[in-house]
Amino acid sequence: GALGMLQATGRLFMVTDYSPEWSYPEGGVKVLITGPWQETGSNYSCLFDQISVPASLIQPGVLRCYCPAHDTGLVTLQVAVSNQIISNSVVFEYKARALPSLPSSQH
Amino acid sequence: GALGMLQATGRLFMVTDYSPEWSYPEGGVKVLITGPWQETGSNYSCLFDQISVPASLIQPGVLRCYCPAHDTGLVTLQVAVSNQIISNSVVFEYKARALPSLPSSQH
Repeated sequence: GALGMLQATGRLFMVTDYSPEWSYPEGGVKVLITGPWQETGSNYSCLFDQISVPASLIQPGVLRCYCPAHDTGLVTLQVAVSNQIISNSVVFEYKARALPSLPSSQH
Repeated sequence: GALGMLQATGRLFMVTDYSPEWSYPEGGVKVLITGPWQETGSNYSCLFDQISVPASLIQPGVLRCYCPAHDTGLVTLQVAVSNQIISNSVVFEYKARALPSLPSSQH
């Protein structure tokens, strides 16, 4: 299967996009992560700073998960199958809530 | 092509997911919209309250666009090809920025 092929070649699948790219520290935000994931029936998860959350393949190429709570800062986001990392890392940001005089940016 | 088939059958493609499902009023937020869109080379757009923005097919099934600015409230979001609507409507929310004592929710 794909996992064996990955392990044999040492290659990683590339995340093509993900949205949103940030969360407030309480987490619980739905995140879509797109890439070449095709295998229905596989056990997908996403790792935010190595914290694993379950992910669902909603259609070929699209995983949905809900990010965990985390302190503010930049973390790595990766896709795993059967708890083994299959993707490159992308950057996910946990943002502090803004002070009243500074609007929070979604960007 | 798909558009002709749609017009012949009167059917709409179904959005399978989209993320995020909201923006602050200034817009400019990246939104991924997933569904059965496969045709590379087609001219996709997304309509937020009938305001059209260009969309890119980043891989089969995944459109990326940037939402326009809009007053707070709930609006319809739809996918179009060659400026003709091909999808059902889903709800997108423009949220006001929170008062200092009330945290903004991403949900």
